[in-house]
Amino acid sequence: MNQDYILPDNWSIIEEGFDAERVKSSESLFSIGNGAMGQRANFEESYSGHTFQGSYIAGIYYPDKTKVGWWKNGYPEYFAKVLNAPNWIGINVTINGEQLDLAKCQVKNFRRELNMKEGWYNRSFDAVLKNGTEVSVNVKRFLSLVNDELGIIKYDVTPITGDAEIIFAPYIDAGVKNEDANWEEKFWEPLDVQHNGNSAFVTARTFKTHFNVATYMHNSILLNGDAQQVSPSNVEADNDKVQFTYSINAAKGEMASIVKFGGYTVSLNHDNEKLVDAAAAVIASAEAKGYDGLLEEQKQAWANIWEMADITIEGDVKAQQGIRFNIFQLNQTYLGKDARLNIGPKGFTGEKYGGSTYWDTEAYCIPFYMATKDQQVARNLLTYRHNQLGKAIENAEKLGFKNGAALYPMVTMNGEECHNEWEITFEEIHRNGAIAFAIYNYYRFTGDYSYIPEKGLEVLIGIARFWHQRATFSTKQNKYVILGVTGPNEYENNVNNNFYTNYIAKWCIDYAVEQIAKVKDEYAADHSRIMGITNLDAGEIAEWKKVSDNMYFPYSEEHGVYLQQDGFLDKELVKVSDLDRSQRPINQKWSWDRILRSPYIKQADVLQGFYFFEDHFTKEELEKHFDFYEPFTVHESSLSPCVHSIQAATLGRMEQAYTFYLRTSRLDLDDYNKEVEEGLHITSMAGTWMSIVEGFGGMRVKNDMLHFEPRIPEQWKGYSFKINFRNQILKVAVHPGETNFTLEGDKELTVYVNGEAVTVEPNMLVTV
Amino acid sequence: MNQDYILPDNWSIIEEGFDAERVKSSESLFSIGNGAMGQRANFEESYSGHTFQGSYIAGIYYPDKTKVGWWKNGYPEYFAKVLNAPNWIGINVTINGEQLDLAKCQVKNFRRELNMKEGWYNRSFDAVLKNGTEVSVNVKRFLSLVNDELGIIKYDVTPITGDAEIIFAPYIDAGVKNEDANWEEKFWEPLDVQHNGNSAFVTARTFKTHFNVATYMHNSILLNGDAQQVSPSNVEADNDKVQFTYSINAAKGEMASIVKFGGYTVSLNHDNEKLVDAAAAVIASAEAKGYDGLLEEQKQAWANIWEMADITIEGDVKAQQGIRFNIFQLNQTYLGKDARLNIGPKGFTGEKYGGSTYWDTEAYCIPFYMATKDQQVARNLLTYRHNQLGKAIENAEKLGFKNGAALYPMVTMNGEECHNEWEITFEEIHRNGAIAFAIYNYYRFTGDYSYIPEKGLEVLIGIARFWHQRATFSTKQNKYVILGVTGPNEYENNVNNNFYTNYIAKWCIDYAVEQIAKVKDEYAADHSRIMGITNLDAGEIAEWKKVSDNMYFPYSEEHGVYLQQDGFLDKELVKVSDLDRSQRPINQKWSWDRILRSPYIKQADVLQGFYFFEDHFTKEELEKHFDFYEPFTVHESSLSPCVHSIQAATLGRMEQAYTFYLRTSRLDLDDYNKEVEEGLHITSMAGTWMSIVEGFGGMRVKNDMLHFEPRIPEQWKGYSFKINFRNQILKVAVHPGETNFTLEGDKELTVYVNGEAVTVEPNMLVTV
Repeated sequence: MNQDYILPDNWSIIEEGFDAERVKSSESLFSIGNGAMGQRANFEESYSGHTFQGSYIAGIYYPDKTKVGWWKNGYPEYFAKVLNAPNWIGINVTINGEQLDLAKCQVKNFRRELNMKEGWYNRSFDAVLKNGTEVSVNVKRFLSLVNDELGIIKYDVTPITGDAEIIFAPYIDAGVKNEDANWEEKFWEPLDVQHNGNSAFVTARTFKTHFNVATYMHNSILLNGDAQQVSPSNVEADNDKVQFTYSINAAKGEMASIVKFGGYTVSLNHDNEKLVDAAAAVIASAEAKGYDGLLEEQKQAWANIWEMADITIEGDVKAQQGIRFNIFQLNQTYLGKDARLNIGPKGFTGEKYGGSTYWDTEAYCIPFYMATKDQQVARNLLTYRHNQLGKAIENAEKLGFKNGAALYPMVTMNGEECHNEWEITFEEIHRNGAIAFAIYNYYRFTGDYSYIPEKGLEVLIGIARFWHQRATFSTKQNKYVILGVTGPNEYENNVNNNFYTNYIAKWCIDYAVEQIAKVKDEYAADHSRIMGITNLDAGEIAEWKKVSDNMYFPYSEEHGVYLQQDGFLDKELVKVSDLDRSQRPINQKWSWDRILRSPYIKQADVLQGFYFFEDHFTKEELEKHFDFYEPFTVHESSLSPCVHSIQAATLGRMEQAYTFYLRTSRLDLDDYNKEVEEGLHITSMAGTWMSIVEGFGGMRVKNDMLHFEPRIPEQWKGYSFKINFRNQILKVAVHPGETNFTLEGDKELTVYVNGEAVTVEPNMLVTV
Repeated sequence: MNQDYILPDNWSIIEEGFDAERVKSSESLFSIGNGAMGQRANFEESYSGHTFQGSYIAGIYYPDKTKVGWWKNGYPEYFAKVLNAPNWIGINVTINGEQLDLAKCQVKNFRRELNMKEGWYNRSFDAVLKNGTEVSVNVKRFLSLVNDELGIIKYDVTPITGDAEIIFAPYIDAGVKNEDANWEEKFWEPLDVQHNGNSAFVTARTFKTHFNVATYMHNSILLNGDAQQVSPSNVEADNDKVQFTYSINAAKGEMASIVKFGGYTVSLNHDNEKLVDAAAAVIASAEAKGYDGLLEEQKQAWANIWEMADITIEGDVKAQQGIRFNIFQLNQTYLGKDARLNIGPKGFTGEKYGGSTYWDTEAYCIPFYMATKDQQVARNLLTYRHNQLGKAIENAEKLGFKNGAALYPMVTMNGEECHNEWEITFEEIHRNGAIAFAIYNYYRFTGDYSYIPEKGLEVLIGIARFWHQRATFSTKQNKYVILGVTGPNEYENNVNNNFYTNYIAKWCIDYAVEQIAKVKDEYAADHSRIMGITNLDAGEIAEWKKVSDNMYFPYSEEHGVYLQQDGFLDKELVKVSDLDRSQRPINQKWSWDRILRSPYIKQADVLQGFYFFEDHFTKEELEKHFDFYEPFTVHESSLSPCVHSIQAATLGRMEQAYTFYLRTSRLDLDDYNKEVEEGLHITSMAGTWMSIVEGFGGMRVKNDMLHFEPRIPEQWKGYSFKINFRNQILKVAVHPGETNFTLEGDKELTVYVNGEAVTVEPNMLVTV
């Protein structure tokens, strides 16, 4: 589990010593991104060892033809894949005639640092080449937050043992392929190659989706930090690649450097014909600022993010490093500027899971973005789904639904479903509920009701229609039932009456009906417009209510708990603690049928419902359900520990809450699931944030007021976080025996701490 | 549905008129086979229209790498595919310099006949070529039953409008590929090409499985029926193909013919080095007999089959044609000579469904072979599973079972599972029950108990162990339950307590325990041997009995029926008759989730249990269950109508029984499912036989005695069939108001007709 090779540090991710076996894992852990593009921490110079090369551009995808064993009606033709983008980071390095390749030379003093505070990645090492030359190398790389089309590399080589001829051969290359491709097709079609002085541009187009991308580079050479006026001594260009050659003679101890600017301009943001011009403009702007200026503005941009988003933890450096890593990666992945983008489960760190958008966004990510950024960011995430409502309606039609019923896809890029496993694609329909819940949650937290009449209500109506049509009447139960679903616990497939699904289905209908009434009262024009668009009338709403008022929920009188699904009690209820360790993780050790008939739970399911709708239940009910279900939960989803951490904290079980917290916050750093080389678990990182703020901090919004129930794990000396509650920024710091609040703003805010009202005035420290 | 282009005829399948749209369908319907090889009715001459080329050799398969979207633990690496074999039928024909191609000339008087009585396929037509030449063509083809390595083609061309130079260019070609291949790999590796005079041999080997096959041909030329002493004027040979050229000048009205012998010798039956010698010996033997002699012995061989297997129907030519087509195809597919072979769902008529052996063999085919052939044939089918017991135990181990528990594969060639859909592969475990049932059924019908101590008991023990381990105890029900299965009705997946599965599981354990006791009493040496091999003791048997004595069966007091599975009554129970026609077939119109949550039944499920275990229930119970389930049954499996036909007849509902009968017997001839071009439904053809013998004839074995309850559809004037009951051949003829019996043999036989004992003496007609 714990690979333990990442050194503890409050602000940086640090690896020391070179181990070829760890290269792919470190490529994931040291990934960098700026919301618009991102890349794995691949070496710039050539490397002949095992590596997983990956550069990605937000919103650029390829519809890979579906691969299944047995086709089912309704499967999508294509699976939208995150696309490995052209390589702009490559710099081949030759020293005294020998190519630098860490797999082929002796490597000493190898060190990587991902400085999260300042937003840069640095790699340094000494290399002893086969030809006997020894050099010291330092490479710093960052993707600009200020100009998200720009990346910067500074690559320094210093001969240690004697003089050296150093050849830098930077290149850009659109001849890339995906690790994850169904049919080994090429995804990129090269269109144009240009070069001009120290700059070069390769334009390529994705097949099928026809995104055009100009990949560019600009290079400058320095000796001992002084710019050298040189042009490339050689240029090699073919139809999808350009490589320049620069040769520098460095005496022993002299530092030869190349500064490479590179990145992409894309047709999402520019006209196809203007991509190269746009890239040239980025280069010009970068040259004007210079490397030092760019690095300085990067530090400032990250300081601005941290100012709001940071969580401090005192007395536990591993926990501190973990939470900052999560916050850093979330901000690298998505910054909320563009409603066409969303948050992929692997961000820019890998290709697994293909498409970008899962229910993770609504269930896990929105609270983080809502609380740590301007509310426009969360609104953009909601708008993304509103923009895709038409496709969600089409998707439902493919499955036989009618009359504007909407089923949002399980996985998507552009609104079309791209998943193809019937038990998930067709049956894991609870995702629709999370999308409605996010609308409610957004209003609850931000107080911005305007989203609902403007956009949200149409989404709520489409979703309510879906649930109304999806439920069927059981004469036996004399209730409405929802048959054949997969709940959040994907270790059950095609079950009947999953409590979570039935509960959120009922809630979606009730909430939609309430909002229709409220919009009618308060936003009459919007109401008329929406009734017109949706062709909805009171008769139909009455039919919905019949379903929501008569929904069936499986319940055990004996245990006093709602059942995860019909028949759950027919299972052999052996607790996880009584299961032989050798049988875990069950998803690697057991065949699928054995998993399905077991009682084991992959991630919160009934408890996910208790998380969303905590205020519908008493603490005693929560405790009963937690005690019933958690012992059967194997937490084999990255999304599992955070919800349990929050609930354990809510129940005052701090030791258990802390254990879950560590597991979620250091999932990737400690590689719990032995798969970090495939990429990071970006969306679950937001769950880590929730574990602290909602779990330990006990933050809730009730009746438009902010409530806290602060708790502190024994292992910590204190922690603090900030939240943007209704455009007021509140800093919360918890230490043993006291909780501090500071408000940035000009109004006062009343919060409730353990049920007691506390008034926090702007810029004053309030201690409770 | 009914394409109606097959002309009604008592003994032949006849098509008149050429329609390019029908070519692929007719290629299926006019397929020929001899148990060892078979082929679609592809044209010998080249054809540039749409065609599905297929030649197959029994027992020769290729393990195609599994293709799935989402891998599950336990999936097999490979899917054993029926393999498209080298082409030996090809004869390119050139007439006055123009290649004969029915897609490129005018075709008149086109007629195909598959003469089922005599076992040959004939195609005749007149062709007007683009060059103006008109010729009359007749082609007769058959696969020898007497020497199953030999096929014969006689191809006659007669110029009608003037003299013609006719070039016959016969070839053999191992450069074939499968329509159904996951990765477009080549399956055959060419090894050797030889030719000698009018004979040629291409040896090729399958990749991975390393089956060696020599494909051969021998050609002779006739003019007006007189043999011409000619050698090929040209020979083209490359690494996997040989083609000869023969040129004949035929005057107007003269018939130029080529007689081509061809076929395969395979490493299943010969040493690799002797394949060509073996083929040469087949040619020599065929030459000695001559074309007319071969045709004559073919007629005789088929007469022998029909003598025993024929069913006559008077007064209904379509029904007569249907049943004979089914009997003919079953005999073309499997003759029971070789325990390594089995009965593929498409026989030698297509590639769909890949592997050869499904539970169809035990559930549907064994009764037909048992009753119409020597009992050794059914014994070979049982032995096939005994030979694969070790693999079935390995298969169960992959799914976590222990201690010799056996799970027979869903689909197999060599005993290894090759299916890969979790809800089928891992969950459609009822197949194990049919394999045990067949052992019981074999003994019940043949009276040959010896199979059980020799081989069957080990299989029964492996199967009983599987069910014992697969059931789990439900404290809630205080019974053993079987969770997460797919029953025979594949329109339900991952259900709990499928009645059929639970019932046959209990029966398997009880039957195994009974047979262990019986073998102990009567075959003590076998008993000791088997207890030694299986390491079974009384304690383990007692554990099995705990499960079988306490098995849970879902039952509805309200309806008085066993429920197909837990929760069946929660469905919206809308009958098929109330479902809009436009929604059917639901497997083409509905997405999978909609099918699963519907009440619709693909094929007999509870009723399959009532079919197998009819004597466990009263006729009133059968009626109640039939009336409850049949109205929800869509019969979208070819295996569905036959069971319902039998049960409708048993209940005296002759009109309904007749409708089901027609649907099963003419499924392919009338192309009910619009898919006949993919091949024929071979295994369901045995169900058609059962519909008459067990349905209309009401034949049952009870207490070691043969019982009949003869009934006759109104549409018929009478019908007759023969059965081999315990090595005595009884002919049964049913006419309105009377039933006749004749016995071939030297002992008398007592049968029960409608409960009354009747003694049938050898060679005497007994009328009841």
